[in-house]
Amino acid sequence: MKKIICIPDSFKGTLSSSLVCDVMETVIHKHMPDCEVIKIQVADGGEGSVDAFLAAVGGTKVFVQVNNPYFEPMESFYAILDGNVAVVEMAAAAGLPLVSDRANPELTSTFGVGELILHAARSGCKKIIVGLGGSCTNDGGCGAASAIGIRFKDVQGNVFIPTGKSLVDIDSIDVSNMDPILRDVEIITMCDIDNPMFGEKGAAYIFGPQKGAYPEMVLRLDRGLKHLAKKITEACEIDVSEITGGGAAGAMGAGMVAFFKSQLKMGIETILDLVEFDQLIKDADLIFTGEGKIDEQSLSGKVPIGVARRAKRVNVPVIAVVGSIGKGFEDAYDQGITAVFSINSEPVDFTIAKTRSKENLALMMDNIMRVLKHNRK
Amino acid sequence: MKKIICIPDSFKGTLSSSLVCDVMETVIHKHMPDCEVIKIQVADGGEGSVDAFLAAVGGTKVFVQVNNPYFEPMESFYAILDGNVAVVEMAAAAGLPLVSDRANPELTSTFGVGELILHAARSGCKKIIVGLGGSCTNDGGCGAASAIGIRFKDVQGNVFIPTGKSLVDIDSIDVSNMDPILRDVEIITMCDIDNPMFGEKGAAYIFGPQKGAYPEMVLRLDRGLKHLAKKITEACEIDVSEITGGGAAGAMGAGMVAFFKSQLKMGIETILDLVEFDQLIKDADLIFTGEGKIDEQSLSGKVPIGVARRAKRVNVPVIAVVGSIGKGFEDAYDQGITAVFSINSEPVDFTIAKTRSKENLALMMDNIMRVLKHNRK
Repeated sequence: MKKIICIPDSFKGTLSSSLVCDVMETVIHKHMPDCEVIKIQVADGGEGSVDAFLAAVGGTKVFVQVNNPYFEPMESFYAILDGNVAVVEMAAAAGLPLVSDRANPELTSTFGVGELILHAARSGCKKIIVGLGGSCTNDGGCGAASAIGIRFKDVQGNVFIPTGKSLVDIDSIDVSNMDPILRDVEIITMCDIDNPMFGEKGAAYIFGPQKGAYPEMVLRLDRGLKHLAKKITEACEIDVSEITGGGAAGAMGAGMVAFFKSQLKMGIETILDLVEFDQLIKDADLIFTGEGKIDEQSLSGKVPIGVARRAKRVNVPVIAVVGSIGKGFEDAYDQGITAVFSINSEPVDFTIAKTRSKENLALMMDNIMRVLKHNRK
Repeated sequence: MKKIICIPDSFKGTLSSSLVCDVMETVIHKHMPDCEVIKIQVADGGEGSVDAFLAAVGGTKVFVQVNNPYFEPMESFYAILDGNVAVVEMAAAAGLPLVSDRANPELTSTFGVGELILHAARSGCKKIIVGLGGSCTNDGGCGAASAIGIRFKDVQGNVFIPTGKSLVDIDSIDVSNMDPILRDVEIITMCDIDNPMFGEKGAAYIFGPQKGAYPEMVLRLDRGLKHLAKKITEACEIDVSEITGGGAAGAMGAGMVAFFKSQLKMGIETILDLVEFDQLIKDADLIFTGEGKIDEQSLSGKVPIGVARRAKRVNVPVIAVVGSIGKGFEDAYDQGITAVFSINSEPVDFTIAKTRSKENLALMMDNIMRVLKHNRK
């Protein structure tokens, strides 16, 4: 084999995408020293995504002072990748770890995320990728919108920056002051979550509690988001109340669509487009992918399936190496997965297995490579 | 691929060799309907070996009346395989289940085993394979020897049939009356056990307790075997006291060598010779083997390694599919194993995993076959 591409998701809780890439590469080169190995780290949009993109594509990390979720100054960052594409991870300015013992989705703001996006645009980036995930907020992106010039007013006409608690106070939204530099910028939001903006499957109900919301607060937050959706429809001529993924990251998904005219895109699709995957695989002999557990859910576009769908078009085999094979994964074969191998070398519980993930991954890769080398077709 | 050979050991406690063969064949044919699949069931010499040989080679099952371990009449059996080779399993006339609640290695005899061997010889078989294992006896094969005409005498010159308890009473052994028909018969004893005839790693110490021997009895049985070894040296001009495997099946291993002029041979080697494995694999594209657990111990000639050593000579790849990969198995690659795959699809304990062995085996086979089909070398 002349060219193998490694593009695994992380094995949640055990191995990072970067580490899986490295193990795969090492084992491939042990058996095929002359084979070109292309490693593509996969970011999920959450914490660490900027670094993952930098590793996968190359570029510069830009450090900027912005407002943290409580409007205090903090140093944050984003990436300008080769090709003048910026990558902003929401967690870098509105992440849950930034507020630690002050977690409160009624009070926290995505303002800093808007500042990062604006900084990237002002630096000349014409395409900005925004990764959602790991947020401490429930402001529907109103903070970020405020940072780019969008005005939220109460019934008295006073401009304010809405947070989770004060979404219900929005009487009107004025988008006319939005920084014009953003008009020429394409913003793509990485979003792997299906939840709508509000309701029982919405941002407040599903993700509120892990951000510190008690049951009463969840109800208030949900009412606020519902109110915001109505106001967005009036001001932005778009109904975001039911869009898939609108509830991601405290309804930042909906805010990105409404205020930033962004499209929500599966994370893996964003990455595949960015690295020009279709081009990369044209002359590849094999693709290795993987994830912690492959099952029915994987079919809704998680990393291995996203990779497989593209590979299938050009008829390149895809081997998925996973931590566990769950129920209902079999349709993966139809989607382009050639074969799936679970790394478990022994019948032991996860509490034991997880301590051996790295060596088990290497062992499985080793045996797959041995078969590939010796196979007589 | 045009020809694949399946020759797995059983997965101890979960899957029989026969079932593993069937699963492998089914999956291979799913992906390669035109591929010739040769299934070779592997017997370990113990209970079920006769049926396994019949399935692997074909032949006739012969039913004979013999003496059971307590010298009562019973119906037993052996096989005459195509090619006039007989297979006798010791367990069919001296097996532990035959005495159930009367288990007592001081009183039980291998006499019936000798009768089976003699019947096979009188039926015209020139080669007899005797499988050891699962016995209730500790008579050093003196019962079987008596059945073919060898005379054991006490100090008064009385002929008797020694059992575990009366081995110490042997004063002399007269081999001159042995049935002459056996002179022209080659007897091969399947023996995968390393234990010597007596001593702390001998038959009485190691296997006595599971046959019902309490500590005092173990000591008596051990003394008896030591005495027998001395008498064998005097009468048979061979010292069996230290031969490897002499302690197998209540020292039947030593008795087979001394009284039947048999060679002790690894079970897998016996099978491989019988099925003319070297010839079979010459035009094979691939061999599947397997066992419950591959580890350091596997290297001392268990099924996958026995298979791999032969395959290596003719450069046919061998894939081992196993229930578990244990420590120190890596030398298996040098012995001819191309790759090893553990069937565990999830990180769960053996108590759970064992209930899914068959489906996990099928799943792993399926994915291996998918890789073999799609591989671009």
